[in-house]
Amino acid sequence: MAQTTPNHTQTVSGWAAHDSSGKITPYVFKRRANGVNDLTIEIFYCGICHTDLHYARNDWGITMYPVVPGHEITGVITKIGSNVRGFKVGDRVGVGCLAASCLECEFCKSSQENYCDQTQFTYNGIFWDGSITYGGYSKFLVADHRYVVHIPDNLPLDAAAPLLCAGITVYSPMKENKMLESPGKKLGIIGLGGLGHIAVKFGKAFGLHVTIISTSPSKEKEAKQRLGADDFIVSTHPKQMEAKKRTLDFILDTASANHSLGNYLELLKVNGTLVVVGAPDKPMELPSFPLIFGKRTIKGSILGGMKETQEMMDVCGQRNIKSDIEVVKTDQINQALDRLSRNDVRYRFVIDIACKSAKM
Amino acid sequence: MAQTTPNHTQTVSGWAAHDSSGKITPYVFKRRANGVNDLTIEIFYCGICHTDLHYARNDWGITMYPVVPGHEITGVITKIGSNVRGFKVGDRVGVGCLAASCLECEFCKSSQENYCDQTQFTYNGIFWDGSITYGGYSKFLVADHRYVVHIPDNLPLDAAAPLLCAGITVYSPMKENKMLESPGKKLGIIGLGGLGHIAVKFGKAFGLHVTIISTSPSKEKEAKQRLGADDFIVSTHPKQMEAKKRTLDFILDTASANHSLGNYLELLKVNGTLVVVGAPDKPMELPSFPLIFGKRTIKGSILGGMKETQEMMDVCGQRNIKSDIEVVKTDQINQALDRLSRNDVRYRFVIDIACKSAKM
Repeated sequence: MAQTTPNHTQTVSGWAAHDSSGKITPYVFKRRANGVNDLTIEIFYCGICHTDLHYARNDWGITMYPVVPGHEITGVITKIGSNVRGFKVGDRVGVGCLAASCLECEFCKSSQENYCDQTQFTYNGIFWDGSITYGGYSKFLVADHRYVVHIPDNLPLDAAAPLLCAGITVYSPMKENKMLESPGKKLGIIGLGGLGHIAVKFGKAFGLHVTIISTSPSKEKEAKQRLGADDFIVSTHPKQMEAKKRTLDFILDTASANHSLGNYLELLKVNGTLVVVGAPDKPMELPSFPLIFGKRTIKGSILGGMKETQEMMDVCGQRNIKSDIEVVKTDQINQALDRLSRNDVRYRFVIDIACKSAKM
Repeated sequence: MAQTTPNHTQTVSGWAAHDSSGKITPYVFKRRANGVNDLTIEIFYCGICHTDLHYARNDWGITMYPVVPGHEITGVITKIGSNVRGFKVGDRVGVGCLAASCLECEFCKSSQENYCDQTQFTYNGIFWDGSITYGGYSKFLVADHRYVVHIPDNLPLDAAAPLLCAGITVYSPMKENKMLESPGKKLGIIGLGGLGHIAVKFGKAFGLHVTIISTSPSKEKEAKQRLGADDFIVSTHPKQMEAKKRTLDFILDTASANHSLGNYLELLKVNGTLVVVGAPDKPMELPSFPLIFGKRTIKGSILGGMKETQEMMDVCGQRNIKSDIEVVKTDQINQALDRLSRNDVRYRFVIDIACKSAKM
């Protein structure tokens, strides 16, 4: 399998992991020439998603080294293909997890490209030309314009970057499961990390009563005072969990650590829905009784389609929703990944790829 | 906790398990006098549900011995309380799993008594008067009329008995999840036992394409030729499972053995739904990837409400749907339970309580 193809004529500086140590070092590689449907984007910022860590360390056994991670990419268009409509040089844009899909199946045709079974990701994927995709830990990106969204003017490019993955990952199931049209309903969010903290913001913006369910009692004060969460349950505290049985309408499960769903399901009312958006390494445990006695529902969701991603970005612009971030320099990526592996970040690291000190 | 209360004045012969050996022996006990809201029912037949085996052997650690199992009860009314409307002496009736509920909560008020959190079961429950409930392995039953349904004239009382639990357990989620209004859609049924074989009948009656998913290749011929299933997948055969990925709209999971949901979820199309109605002893394994990549749904369901149980019974009458049964005498209960524990029954044992040789 070729890593590059003859049309890969542009040299780009980036940062890659080369083996399962996951250590990131500078890496120069080639990107394709800007095609008729492509945009070339000078990357300003790239968020660090937990998935980057999984791929860098080959946790899922599917990493093709060297891997250039990064799928929370924001920047400015520098070149434009002749077939591209709706974008121009200088536009502030973002690229998330999707690099390609079949364009022809029912999912692609209804802009649910994320459920196309030919979907290829922004890194560690195989693009239409046979080349391996490289992500946003790099100075520029060539992207098909069908997988690029506009960033509203009022959103800073650094704090907007995590919306491209963390944001859409929680927005899409919240919309799909009617959480954004149910003011007053009770939403529980398992895990207050990169995904969870954005979910709190969507939840509060759309009038939900938001409960954080966390293993970390230390997060309670900030969750309530700064993020505006209404309630906080320590999931390892049986009495707290018991007291909240049958109280929640929805739960968004953002936990990436291995866990059992039984006690969380008990928090749901009859007919309540828990949506899984995390990807724990090991199967979750699902006891039958809390599922069947409460007629409860578990759903899965991954990312969102491109139309929906633009919609989410526009909603964030209108409601001034952005990620809480810690900006790091390109020589601090390994430290950031290391801290991320210990969940020591509030709430998303963003790499300052273009060395912009001020927010855009 | 009193097993009987002063109003327990009627002596009844039955069959009970007395310890975790699960061995069933004759047992004489008391039932309450027929109250103003009660019906006394001469029991003709009682189905043997897998749950009876769990309770007899105390598999779930909650059995109150002696336990008189049985919640698939059919018979004829012999006494009637003064407040009872809609029933008369001589009526052919059935009693399923529910003996009592709070009557006041939103679920009771909408005839979803099965999701009331005060629900008490037909055996091993605590009735309103504080007594422990005893089930249908007995000569007669006193039941509150709100938990009794009519049996259509054309349904024999023996083959109708399993509808009270196995039937409603599959009918309710099939209706709730729109399987009964989706002719041509593809339904998979995991497990071809007491529940599964009735689900095939509902599926075919409502125009679905029905696939049996079973660990037993030996069941294929009968599933197709006698029950009318359209397809059969051996779940332990990786190539067969692989070939059917993303092909099913719904799956009804009736398996009571411990299992992982991952491979079954892969059989579902994007947006497909798997409904769990079994109660395996151990938590099921739920890997995240097949759930999130396919935006799939897992739901739980237990029994059905009383209105819905009557509706199901009427549908069975109209469409001549009944259980395939093996009738056993009261001195064969232990053999039947033993065979049931080895899944050696096609497809439901029914005890001939009243020693009727001919079908009603």
